[in-house]
Amino acid sequence: MNRGIEMDIRIQKIFEALFAIEDLREIFRHSLPTGLNEDEEQRFSDGLTKLEGILKDLKAGNGKGNPLKYVVDGIELRTREESFINIHPIQPGGRLTPEARKVLIAYGDGYSTCDWCRKPFRLDKIERPPIDEFHAELAEFLGMDQARVVPGARRGFQAVVSSLVEKGDSVIVSSLAHYTEFLAVEDAGGVVKEVPLNEKNIVTGEATAQKVEDVKREAGTLPKLIMIDHFDYMFGNEHDVYGIAKVAKEYDIPFLYNGAYTVGVMPVDGKKIGADFVVGSGHKSMASVAPSGVLATTDEWAKKVFRTTQMVGDVTKRKFGIKEVEMLGCTLMGGTLLSMMASFPKVKERTKKWDEEVRKSNYFINEFLKVKGSKVLSECPRKHTLSKVDTTESFDKVAREHKRRGYFLSDELKNKGIVGEFAGATRAWKLNTYGLTWDQIKYLGAAFIDIAMKYHIEVI
Amino acid sequence: MNRGIEMDIRIQKIFEALFAIEDLREIFRHSLPTGLNEDEEQRFSDGLTKLEGILKDLKAGNGKGNPLKYVVDGIELRTREESFINIHPIQPGGRLTPEARKVLIAYGDGYSTCDWCRKPFRLDKIERPPIDEFHAELAEFLGMDQARVVPGARRGFQAVVSSLVEKGDSVIVSSLAHYTEFLAVEDAGGVVKEVPLNEKNIVTGEATAQKVEDVKREAGTLPKLIMIDHFDYMFGNEHDVYGIAKVAKEYDIPFLYNGAYTVGVMPVDGKKIGADFVVGSGHKSMASVAPSGVLATTDEWAKKVFRTTQMVGDVTKRKFGIKEVEMLGCTLMGGTLLSMMASFPKVKERTKKWDEEVRKSNYFINEFLKVKGSKVLSECPRKHTLSKVDTTESFDKVAREHKRRGYFLSDELKNKGIVGEFAGATRAWKLNTYGLTWDQIKYLGAAFIDIAMKYHIEVI
Repeated sequence: MNRGIEMDIRIQKIFEALFAIEDLREIFRHSLPTGLNEDEEQRFSDGLTKLEGILKDLKAGNGKGNPLKYVVDGIELRTREESFINIHPIQPGGRLTPEARKVLIAYGDGYSTCDWCRKPFRLDKIERPPIDEFHAELAEFLGMDQARVVPGARRGFQAVVSSLVEKGDSVIVSSLAHYTEFLAVEDAGGVVKEVPLNEKNIVTGEATAQKVEDVKREAGTLPKLIMIDHFDYMFGNEHDVYGIAKVAKEYDIPFLYNGAYTVGVMPVDGKKIGADFVVGSGHKSMASVAPSGVLATTDEWAKKVFRTTQMVGDVTKRKFGIKEVEMLGCTLMGGTLLSMMASFPKVKERTKKWDEEVRKSNYFINEFLKVKGSKVLSECPRKHTLSKVDTTESFDKVAREHKRRGYFLSDELKNKGIVGEFAGATRAWKLNTYGLTWDQIKYLGAAFIDIAMKYHIEVI
Repeated sequence: MNRGIEMDIRIQKIFEALFAIEDLREIFRHSLPTGLNEDEEQRFSDGLTKLEGILKDLKAGNGKGNPLKYVVDGIELRTREESFINIHPIQPGGRLTPEARKVLIAYGDGYSTCDWCRKPFRLDKIERPPIDEFHAELAEFLGMDQARVVPGARRGFQAVVSSLVEKGDSVIVSSLAHYTEFLAVEDAGGVVKEVPLNEKNIVTGEATAQKVEDVKREAGTLPKLIMIDHFDYMFGNEHDVYGIAKVAKEYDIPFLYNGAYTVGVMPVDGKKIGADFVVGSGHKSMASVAPSGVLATTDEWAKKVFRTTQMVGDVTKRKFGIKEVEMLGCTLMGGTLLSMMASFPKVKERTKKWDEEVRKSNYFINEFLKVKGSKVLSECPRKHTLSKVDTTESFDKVAREHKRRGYFLSDELKNKGIVGEFAGATRAWKLNTYGLTWDQIKYLGAAFIDIAMKYHIEVI
């Protein structure tokens, strides 16, 4: 096994420095507002000395002693985004911007959004920090009338399904629907009805119309909701959301656009698409802390899905009129929301550069396919940065003879500073190039070719 | 108006230093694993120089130029926990430990928990970081068989209610129930039935039994669930959860113990109490990022509330058998969960020191009551750190004549480095002393007396 590339010790030192400053910060958290006492000043001074030592190492670029392995007992330091190129299928779009990381440092504490919460006491009405404004911008960004933040896209599905679906009702989903759509429907007592894929693994408007007809015939009633992923989690293929929205409109069935793989990375205009609901994921595609996401809708549907509570206490006669039932009141009352807000300006900008991301994805895939026997199971040319590849006839041939089996590929990639592939998998597996620089993309493509050559796989 | 105490500029500088290091970190995120290129080295070097300047200021204890006001455009720096004593009713228990802040720095990125996710692909089964172990410890900590993390206590209520309650069913809650309990019941189509308070604003077992009888008589069936807050959000009064659990058992109705104000600050043993479900809040009482929480239950009830999906795709025949319907699969896949885990050792420790927190609470309240006319609306002596006070006959008398009205008190408190009271309120309002040191407690008590004396309110 190769020794691999050497990790830059400065990465560890950066974390050591951050942690040392957090220790300084902690001193102030237990002090009086009038200032530090003698003991606290001493600890502050000691902490500063420690920090200066770390900075010296950081400057010298060499670390004394062992590199930092753990943040706290049992929890390893995570330097995956600094030390490696990360091609994990679901992680790249959720990587925090520096703005989000900074805001998170300042707003990590529990209910940090509630400092200036005033009447009517609801998260999306808070003006300081400008959470109300953010909600308005979020709706506009998605081409919808209203938006709410939710604890992950799945909680967006849940809110809509719970509002629209009764026991036994059918919900149309894709044959590549994410499992969370299944669960949201099951939780409401509904039944999923999958639209079959065409020969290119695409969900079309025609197939959706056919499925609606099938359900109507078999169940005697129309489905209550059509919920389709614009790009699916399996292949990253694009499905015909425009055609599907048209069908939904024709049958007067509400359409939920699942933008977990689009909102925050590519432009999404819900009204133009013809969606009644747009759901996005903060931790998947909006550079935000998990769990976070967005549910946007039209004014018409907002009345139903963002309906406010009608419950009255039988003894106290209490009412909580402003609170929204499906949101369960406030949703993301701290660092999750603030990370979304801090990343938002960059997220808006980056969606405009989606074409470039797709170009990089295709560039990489072309390089990847130079290794003879390697295939792409996703549609080509790629329209997304998430791709499913098949290396059964290339790297898996090596794996079959290798004492580390499929892990040989993980080892080789790691030696080159690449992580995020499914460890041990050398047949069908997924990767995501989102957000990599051209230099990183070229390095990544070359890496697979290098590994192939090392193991005498033909390179075309 | 007083000039007030001067804020320590070093607090701002600490944030400046943290942010400057995040900028250094960002350089590595776009570099090749083989190392920084010339341009990146230059930026790193420039960043280090900037950082050294900040450190110099930090050491000198004086800041040049203006103190940092914003983290990023529109989002103010938040130094409420460093610059002030924060007596906000709901924030103190969610204040992050330094361990949580460090882990959050390392694990803020979206799906950061998923690096080592392997079969069976469920959050609570992940071994690295030791999320599986944390779940087991969490259950043990609460004296229950099984635990899951959820996006806030409210999502715990929702999971239980959604599993147990059908349309029209009754759920017994307290007359001081939190609004999220109302919403969870309403979302499931149920109806809340409030147990009246006794003359001391306490929910007793007897009153609960009476209410069960009333519901049985009026509705013809028993309520499906009894859901009671151990300490309520309004007064921080302790309610008779042992007695209520006994009643629940007698009627064979499941009992949900709402520990939003207890789990993570005081010892809670669910089985000893006789609870079928224990719900806690991460951001309210477990020093964690919002939204986070815990739902723990017995093996018996786990079968129902943590039931796995049975849905089968009609076309693909897909099944996602391991995924839990009410959890919607994975719940807290990033920094929220890691902050809970990192704080957990200290959270466990601090619950053992609850008596000391209650002593501090009572010490403060005694001082507070020295201001003639001030009252405490919560039960006395205090059994919790959250208290509702009434200053209608003390500070409100000043407010009535003051040009700043009730804000005069906020101004005065802020001048003394105290925040978190409800700005402008001088009649009934709430405060929480949790986690303050004895020095801070004494300072806080003296502050109210000082203000009273300044405005010629009699001090007893």
